[in-house]
Amino acid sequence: MKISDNGILRCGEMMAYYDISGCYILRPNAMKIWNIMRTYFDAVLEKAEVDENYFPLFVSASVLEKEKDHVQGFAPEVAWVTKAGKSDLNVPIAIRPTSETVIYPYFSKWIKSHRDLPLKLNQWNNVVRWEFSKPTPFIRSREFLWQEGHTAHATEEDADNEVGLVLEVLDHYRHLYEEYLAVPVVKGMKSENEKFAGARYTTSVEAFIPETGRGIQGATSHCLGTKFAKMFDIKFTNKEGKNELVWQNSWAYSTRTIGVMIMTHGDDKGLVNPPKVAPIQVIVIPVPFKDADTKEISKACCAVKDALREAGIRAKEDLSDNYSPKWKYSHWEMKGVPLRIEIGPRDLAKNQVRTVRRDNGVKADVPRVGLVEHVKELLGKIQQNMFDVAKQKRDDACVVVKTWDEFVEALGQKKLILAPWCDEAEVEMDVKRRTKDEVGAAKTLCSPFDQPEIPEGTLCFASGKLAKKWTYWGKSY
Amino acid sequence: MKISDNGILRCGEMMAYYDISGCYILRPNAMKIWNIMRTYFDAVLEKAEVDENYFPLFVSASVLEKEKDHVQGFAPEVAWVTKAGKSDLNVPIAIRPTSETVIYPYFSKWIKSHRDLPLKLNQWNNVVRWEFSKPTPFIRSREFLWQEGHTAHATEEDADNEVGLVLEVLDHYRHLYEEYLAVPVVKGMKSENEKFAGARYTTSVEAFIPETGRGIQGATSHCLGTKFAKMFDIKFTNKEGKNELVWQNSWAYSTRTIGVMIMTHGDDKGLVNPPKVAPIQVIVIPVPFKDADTKEISKACCAVKDALREAGIRAKEDLSDNYSPKWKYSHWEMKGVPLRIEIGPRDLAKNQVRTVRRDNGVKADVPRVGLVEHVKELLGKIQQNMFDVAKQKRDDACVVVKTWDEFVEALGQKKLILAPWCDEAEVEMDVKRRTKDEVGAAKTLCSPFDQPEIPEGTLCFASGKLAKKWTYWGKSY
Repeated sequence: MKISDNGILRCGEMMAYYDISGCYILRPNAMKIWNIMRTYFDAVLEKAEVDENYFPLFVSASVLEKEKDHVQGFAPEVAWVTKAGKSDLNVPIAIRPTSETVIYPYFSKWIKSHRDLPLKLNQWNNVVRWEFSKPTPFIRSREFLWQEGHTAHATEEDADNEVGLVLEVLDHYRHLYEEYLAVPVVKGMKSENEKFAGARYTTSVEAFIPETGRGIQGATSHCLGTKFAKMFDIKFTNKEGKNELVWQNSWAYSTRTIGVMIMTHGDDKGLVNPPKVAPIQVIVIPVPFKDADTKEISKACCAVKDALREAGIRAKEDLSDNYSPKWKYSHWEMKGVPLRIEIGPRDLAKNQVRTVRRDNGVKADVPRVGLVEHVKELLGKIQQNMFDVAKQKRDDACVVVKTWDEFVEALGQKKLILAPWCDEAEVEMDVKRRTKDEVGAAKTLCSPFDQPEIPEGTLCFASGKLAKKWTYWGKSY
Repeated sequence: MKISDNGILRCGEMMAYYDISGCYILRPNAMKIWNIMRTYFDAVLEKAEVDENYFPLFVSASVLEKEKDHVQGFAPEVAWVTKAGKSDLNVPIAIRPTSETVIYPYFSKWIKSHRDLPLKLNQWNNVVRWEFSKPTPFIRSREFLWQEGHTAHATEEDADNEVGLVLEVLDHYRHLYEEYLAVPVVKGMKSENEKFAGARYTTSVEAFIPETGRGIQGATSHCLGTKFAKMFDIKFTNKEGKNELVWQNSWAYSTRTIGVMIMTHGDDKGLVNPPKVAPIQVIVIPVPFKDADTKEISKACCAVKDALREAGIRAKEDLSDNYSPKWKYSHWEMKGVPLRIEIGPRDLAKNQVRTVRRDNGVKADVPRVGLVEHVKELLGKIQQNMFDVAKQKRDDACVVVKTWDEFVEALGQKKLILAPWCDEAEVEMDVKRRTKDEVGAAKTLCSPFDQPEIPEGTLCFASGKLAKKWTYWGKSY
């Protein structure tokens, strides 16, 4: 679904609009999903011996502007503090749009010897990018939450291999999307035009929203090379006693993850939360027909909820007496709870419950005996089905094109396009220009690591030159 | 110890100075302590059904200025964003110094009926107070991390009793200080002058640093009454169908906690971390005398470390070969590791280790058999001893005074002063004025909840009027 359709996000209590344009309130359901992901990623970081730190929100202009490519990429979006109380500051101070320039001057102080490497740090923080294009909750907001990891290494090889974590972290991002959020993503390499400002190369996980026909960058992991090291003079004495520049990497994922999840799974009834991250996994609702023993039914609801909770399932009962069961069904469907359990007089008599899946609406009568195990399995099935359905939709939206005409046609049909490309920055710029007015500017999403074979002599769909690789193209968020 | 003495903080790798005055880098050891406390407090919040949310960093001027007392308190320290990219903003936007005015307009939208109450929210975030007085790491910084809780209730009674959490949360703050950081604190009520800007009343936990003779507010929990509700129009329909204002509370603790811990326990050798929050609880160091079997000793060190880790103790070994054992002792003492284990050839032969406590330097030979249990106990003893010693020092620094002369004398002697007071704001202002030039301005810290008896006819030490309560006074951070 499109984000902010029909106030679904607000009703789903994921976010609320705020009186400053482009800023949004993250409500408890969004924070619960965020924290579940954070717990996973913190364990990853601990295992990889990445330490948590916290650098300031502010960065001085002179430091921010040190790495030219980097600042060019971010300058148009930087928010500036120029006043405190009633006093004008002597020098304006920037709010971090990302922390490379905040952190690296200190890498230069802390790294002296090869014994200080690798240095691996991460922080959980807010960043500000004052975008002037249309803001969208979760997807493109002026302030957002993320983690940013920064590492320094003795050699190019270390930066590129598993010590450097670039591809390892990227795979954990994939894991978060696919296993937690049930969103299929493609791992790949960004083009020269689309890489991070100042990076040697950028890898990413890319998702696609079939309904809007737009790709979306899910998270990125960058190899920075020695560019920042040169600018910030980050050198170490190697084992031979010589001074060398460090090789650096950085990587981040943000609250955008939640937006991609919402767009991938949401439907006409509202949110659909994958069980693994759902703040409430099971909602238990009493269905007291006329003359039924309301008290016994409520008791059964609580007992079921308690049993589920004891087994570690995030269950809740809704015993409120001012709404009808039907109203409650819609309410909890809108909030995206993956599984509903209904208990009425007939269920009570038969010692069973009625289960209703949010993902496909399938209903079933399930005996109370063995219910907890059954629910566990069912949640696993829902998680898998949500991924499978999303993957099928994504795959259905994907076409392989070989010519410009096919490309333009596919773009008009909101497709995710895989095309042979000459990998020239100028050609990508040209594609952007040529598609801008017709169907909306297309760009590269990524060149997948998992490359189909490229027969000799295959030509670039756009330039007619020899193609070097398969690349995903599309309109994007 | 005084914070920032001899670069101890930097060497202890708790923080680093940053190129913007008043902003500091929180390094991994500080973040580990912060996260251990956060884990405790998050569990408290979950049990109390306080939901986590995240409100924006920015607040518009018109909203910030709505509650007059509140804005007067914070206005001099507010940082203003006036530019984004190259454009001037139409209206300057403030960075939150705290989030009452950020959050409460939305309480007004979300709270409609008595069924929506109580509303209990918390967020973990950064706030900015652009202080112009001398900044100190952890204690007074321009940006700091904290949690801020905000609740709304149907009645004054609910706001004041356990539903409102004011005193419950305050006791958890005491718990964090006393049980985690081994810092004794006093729970009490702030004076009219010292209460939170806009609050009905403010409660706090107060610590005292004998070495500097200054009190320090550890954390605060406020009863806001209906003041913000009036300004932001936060009303609900009660059970009788009538509109009423909500009663509100807010409470916060910040990274200042870590600063208080450092000042309380630090000594000439560096930091002393209480075991409960120590990032490393036990450091294991090999002591290979000449001709000793270095390999076997290293192996023993690793085995001990592994056994401790398996039991959930945060242990680490230092096998680096470029430093002497003596250098390592100083290094890990400076970092504040509560317990050192040394293993030399003699220990190896006797199947024992040498333990050295950071808090009191006591050394002991301990058999390898049963070592893990022994270390667990020892860490508990160190934790308790650190608290006992700190409490003894604090108590020794406390004097009861009854006259102005005694008060001034005690103040000159860097004492924590308990005095009978008439509880009049004007008198506190007067005490501040009268002490300012002589020995440094004194103010109230708090009136302890645990009040000694006040004999009838006892007079205020400052005004000579009838005393209403015992109150702690002192210079303060």
